[in-house]
Amino acid sequence: MQLKVQPIDIKVGKYKVVMNTIDAKELGVYEGDRVRIRDHVTLTAIVDFTEDMISPGMIGLYHEVQEQLQREWTEMVEVEAAEKPKSARIIRKVMDGMKLERDEINELVRDIVEENLSDIELAAFLTATYIKDLSEDETEWLTRAMIDTGERLEFSTSPIMDKHSIGGVPGNKISLLIVPIVAANGLLIPKTSSRAITGAGGTADLMEILAPVEFSARQIKDMTEKVGGVIVWGGATNIAPADDKLIKVEYPLSIDPHCQLLASIMAKKGAVGAQKVVMDIPTGSGTKIPDVKAGRKLARDLINLGERLGMDVDCALTYGSSPVGRTVGPALEVIEALKVLETMEGPNSLIEKSVILAGMLLEMGGAASRGQGRDLALETLKNGKALAKMKEIIEIQGGNPDVTYKDIALGEFTAEIKAPANGYVIEFYNKRIVQAARFAGAPNDKGSGVLIHKKRGELVEKDQSVLTIYAEKKEKLEEAVKYCREYPPIFVEGMLIEKVADVTEV
Amino acid sequence: MQLKVQPIDIKVGKYKVVMNTIDAKELGVYEGDRVRIRDHVTLTAIVDFTEDMISPGMIGLYHEVQEQLQREWTEMVEVEAAEKPKSARIIRKVMDGMKLERDEINELVRDIVEENLSDIELAAFLTATYIKDLSEDETEWLTRAMIDTGERLEFSTSPIMDKHSIGGVPGNKISLLIVPIVAANGLLIPKTSSRAITGAGGTADLMEILAPVEFSARQIKDMTEKVGGVIVWGGATNIAPADDKLIKVEYPLSIDPHCQLLASIMAKKGAVGAQKVVMDIPTGSGTKIPDVKAGRKLARDLINLGERLGMDVDCALTYGSSPVGRTVGPALEVIEALKVLETMEGPNSLIEKSVILAGMLLEMGGAASRGQGRDLALETLKNGKALAKMKEIIEIQGGNPDVTYKDIALGEFTAEIKAPANGYVIEFYNKRIVQAARFAGAPNDKGSGVLIHKKRGELVEKDQSVLTIYAEKKEKLEEAVKYCREYPPIFVEGMLIEKVADVTEV
Repeated sequence: MQLKVQPIDIKVGKYKVVMNTIDAKELGVYEGDRVRIRDHVTLTAIVDFTEDMISPGMIGLYHEVQEQLQREWTEMVEVEAAEKPKSARIIRKVMDGMKLERDEINELVRDIVEENLSDIELAAFLTATYIKDLSEDETEWLTRAMIDTGERLEFSTSPIMDKHSIGGVPGNKISLLIVPIVAANGLLIPKTSSRAITGAGGTADLMEILAPVEFSARQIKDMTEKVGGVIVWGGATNIAPADDKLIKVEYPLSIDPHCQLLASIMAKKGAVGAQKVVMDIPTGSGTKIPDVKAGRKLARDLINLGERLGMDVDCALTYGSSPVGRTVGPALEVIEALKVLETMEGPNSLIEKSVILAGMLLEMGGAASRGQGRDLALETLKNGKALAKMKEIIEIQGGNPDVTYKDIALGEFTAEIKAPANGYVIEFYNKRIVQAARFAGAPNDKGSGVLIHKKRGELVEKDQSVLTIYAEKKEKLEEAVKYCREYPPIFVEGMLIEKVADVTEV
Repeated sequence: MQLKVQPIDIKVGKYKVVMNTIDAKELGVYEGDRVRIRDHVTLTAIVDFTEDMISPGMIGLYHEVQEQLQREWTEMVEVEAAEKPKSARIIRKVMDGMKLERDEINELVRDIVEENLSDIELAAFLTATYIKDLSEDETEWLTRAMIDTGERLEFSTSPIMDKHSIGGVPGNKISLLIVPIVAANGLLIPKTSSRAITGAGGTADLMEILAPVEFSARQIKDMTEKVGGVIVWGGATNIAPADDKLIKVEYPLSIDPHCQLLASIMAKKGAVGAQKVVMDIPTGSGTKIPDVKAGRKLARDLINLGERLGMDVDCALTYGSSPVGRTVGPALEVIEALKVLETMEGPNSLIEKSVILAGMLLEMGGAASRGQGRDLALETLKNGKALAKMKEIIEIQGGNPDVTYKDIALGEFTAEIKAPANGYVIEFYNKRIVQAARFAGAPNDKGSGVLIHKKRGELVEKDQSVLTIYAEKKEKLEEAVKYCREYPPIFVEGMLIEKVADVTEV
């Protein structure tokens, strides 16, 4: 069927076109079907339907299709019904509980990366893997396909170190300490990190206060070879792009299928060329991993998948029911981490967790002998080598190496959340702390967040401040305070919790 | 956040808006999240993101949102992050294998009808029910919610009869005989039918050759009360609209979850007020129901669900491995059915199936005593009462009651598909017959289709025609012939099937 081109200047993130229902009927295509557009290039696109927006005889081309075809207004294209991509049948196999072959997984991941699958198909795939999971073989192939369909860093030296935290614990700024400690001991650690989606600040959000974090794969490699480490945003690269596209569909469903979680983590490590990796698995109520048993299972699966991929993986189950350190929110967390690097002053939970994980990496990489890693890591902090390395990292990423923790600006609006009674802190809700920081503006407003004065088990007096909320905007501060009033992040022993109509501000 | 309205004149079938990523970040919303737009009305919409199409400070409103808000260009609206609808959590429960409460199902179906769920969420729901199915309670509640969220026919007399075919067998034009037979015997049968999606012609596509088929629920009721029956397109009504919206997502996934199949059929029957229903369950290779065991299970489930809904359901497992009659495609099928009504001449498979199912309805409705239904149905055909009733039905729907089978126009282009050898027809592929009819233009080109001269088990001579393909357009005829050459719909005993490079035309 010959149809006249009508450009639609909207990016939809996929190859999509719009046809009038009359033409669609004539062509025998229905909602969710695809058409092939033949021109000097041939392209398959998903069809949307309209009764009035596009006239019969016309075809609306969304931005991505226009770009691919380089068509001008009023030119004609040849349009025909296209079969579903093979991947649609492959997804159906997963739904039917059948095992996939390696080349089927390759085909599927290629179609994911090339945006050939609709949201409906991706959602079906993720839902099916959430319910049925994939086998070890399938998960390995999925991971390899994710690595192979993106950019890769290839270093000529070894070992390449890396570290990953499963997430779910607030204030986990440990990468800002671990990366310089490891790099200061002569090991290479090209750390790509994420921005917060549901959190109050990812490592990339934090590092961005100190230096730019958006670099190409090539630049990441060069910088790592020069100073030993970087702390950059993985999303700016084309590393394991399939994973990003799957996450976009997982997020609205609030799911993280086990096999996808494994593949996602390991693909990103594999693509940067990591050979020895430490996994931080925060465990406990309010984290992604509810108990030690689930943590051990995940650790085993990560180690196993690492082995299959030729990667040496060590895992640490860490305490995740309370924030790491006493700060949640980009600027507050950077201040806390920099202060440790500069002065060794800071919360024990932050220093201890950082030196233990850094120590594991030092031992795995051969920079420390067995059993000596933690001490070497602590020493590297104390003798200022970690700070010096951090300055090099900040400088090579284009930041100001002379920055100190005192230079970091916090939001100018603050509110104190006070204890309603004398007693011990008996409940501490991670998710509410994060939510309060988000209401205050984190992670977008870098100066917003929550400073924690009292953690679980600590003694507090009536009217003593337990949290300070920082915000860059007054309205946001008010929203955060309102939220804390409704959903107190901390409970003090003896506090009345049943009288819901008038909950005391905590 | 105050944002300026920028209308986007595209219908997307949902409440959707587009925001610049900068504003979205500020608001803390992410792909797949929702925003609440406060104005003189408040509305929740799913957010798409753009970096360039909509400037910061603006919000793009797709057609449906504009219509709801009745906003003009450059006016401001208040936009805030909105939580996910409760239905998103309900869908998650299904994914986690948890049972739903009745009010959760009500909430979910309401959100489906009101277009509050994204395609991703709907796909997750359908995939989860495909893998895990719903319980009997849940399926009943789902069906009731589907009935309650749409229009309903309420008749003052009883019984109200209905008939449904599960589909999957080509040429199943039996409703054109059953409805007039039943109505001619004084029973009411308000038959809503579908158009073909993957088939060569649904009952609505067929009936449309004889009379208009698009009516409101009110008109369907009035016409049925006047002449005893109608044959209309269900899609023109607002009967069980949730079902149509789910089918739009099931189709691209090529799935029909068992509980959805049950709910879909029974909601449509329940909404038209049906009290006594016959289900035609075509069984065998090439149908939706592969074997008798699966057919019996479906029958039991339909009867059981009917009981829960207060509906009397009888089921007939019918032979589905060959087409019903010898025609596939709208005009060909109408000719075949009308000819039976007018002359009693026609294929035994069509007449016998129609009188058996019509007979079951006559017995259920009390118009025939037990065991006498089939004979009364056949008598109604023979004595011309069914034809007279069909003319009344055609007339009340606005068609020409004087039409005879000789008046129905067929496509002017034809091709004969001939036997390559003497022998018996040993294979007959339903799906290929349907596909050939579709390539020829069916169901959109009403005169296109396939006339079958030889069915399974029949003796054929070399070069004798086994199929005639009709088409309204020459190119389409050629496509259909090409398809039959590549995928022969019929195999004759002794035929060479291995030599793929040069398959003989059959």
